[in-house]
Amino acid sequence: MSDGEAKVISTEPLLESEAVWTKLVKDPKGVKRTWESAERRTRPKDSEIDGVGIVAILEKETGPEIVLQKQYRPPLDKIVIELPAGLVDEGETAEQAAVRELKEETGYVAEVLETSPIMFNDPGFCNTNLRMVHVSVDMGLPENQDLKPELEENEFIEVFLVRLDSLWEECKKLEAEGYAIDARIANLAEGIELAKKFKL
Amino acid sequence: MSDGEAKVISTEPLLESEAVWTKLVKDPKGVKRTWESAERRTRPKDSEIDGVGIVAILEKETGPEIVLQKQYRPPLDKIVIELPAGLVDEGETAEQAAVRELKEETGYVAEVLETSPIMFNDPGFCNTNLRMVHVSVDMGLPENQDLKPELEENEFIEVFLVRLDSLWEECKKLEAEGYAIDARIANLAEGIELAKKFKL
Repeated sequence: MSDGEAKVISTEPLLESEAVWTKLVKDPKGVKRTWESAERRTRPKDSEIDGVGIVAILEKETGPEIVLQKQYRPPLDKIVIELPAGLVDEGETAEQAAVRELKEETGYVAEVLETSPIMFNDPGFCNTNLRMVHVSVDMGLPENQDLKPELEENEFIEVFLVRLDSLWEECKKLEAEGYAIDARIANLAEGIELAKKFKL
Repeated sequence: MSDGEAKVISTEPLLESEAVWTKLVKDPKGVKRTWESAERRTRPKDSEIDGVGIVAILEKETGPEIVLQKQYRPPLDKIVIELPAGLVDEGETAEQAAVRELKEETGYVAEVLETSPIMFNDPGFCNTNLRMVHVSVDMGLPENQDLKPELEENEFIEVFLVRLDSLWEECKKLEAEGYAIDARIANLAEGIELAKKFKL
């Protein structure tokens, strides 16, 4: 993948979109107000979430490392530093989606450790949400030594590892290099720094 | 504020929206694709961010506590557990917006400690973004003992504190009670748990 080649050519307003709604709302005082709200149109009917984010930690002798990705994102027209992530398919659990997406996007075969509550990306603007699935990657498995991602034709993903204890510094460095930073990674990194600072 | 009274009455598709765009994109292989992308229409022209999230820590003798809020959000039709946050005004820095919003929403008077890189809420779907501003709250100040929030007529916010070392458990408990959890808080909490687990 050659960074920087991808770009937005043109942008047109979407007419009669079903992705943005005007909601008529009764507020806590009983006053009626209107509110604009966006949503993804891809959530399966039987699913309470749009997708999953995957926290995949490799426990190395030199310390734990987290699996990250570089991916071009049209809404930003930039390459974004993200956790492995993906939308859930019809009938799929968060855990199944996480194991499948991690394998497809990075090649790593993983076991699920824990699944988070549902979390909302930007609740004042849209209803998009996800669960974070924490997985362990057994580096003793041969599949995890010789990675074979199975990217779709329209996916362009570069996988890399960052030491968990320097994630915050790495976020700043990557931003300075011109990458956009996904909020999930930055907030995880901030949580790690808070725990260090207050010796939690 | 009486929880649960607020609700969405009706939802209509927004016609000819300028909040969702169809982008024509050249992908990294040079293939042209279209992509739907949403954006807030409130970002000031001179601003690189939509808003700020505020990490306000009270250093108590019993341990650090973080300032959280309960707020009804029409896009979810639920009460959401969030960090104090807000949109930046024209000509305002992230730090100015953070100090102003914290005072308005919670009454706390704070000093800025650190500002995060720009982070993107959901880069596969929209361009909405923020900086996190970390602030300290001096509990010795009289203003911080006798809180006087200045909420706008259409804001309904309840402020509460959570011990930083139990934020993850608290997120799960609040979800079980029917609240929606904002991703920033949940990801901070996950970062704290990762730091504890790996003794970072």
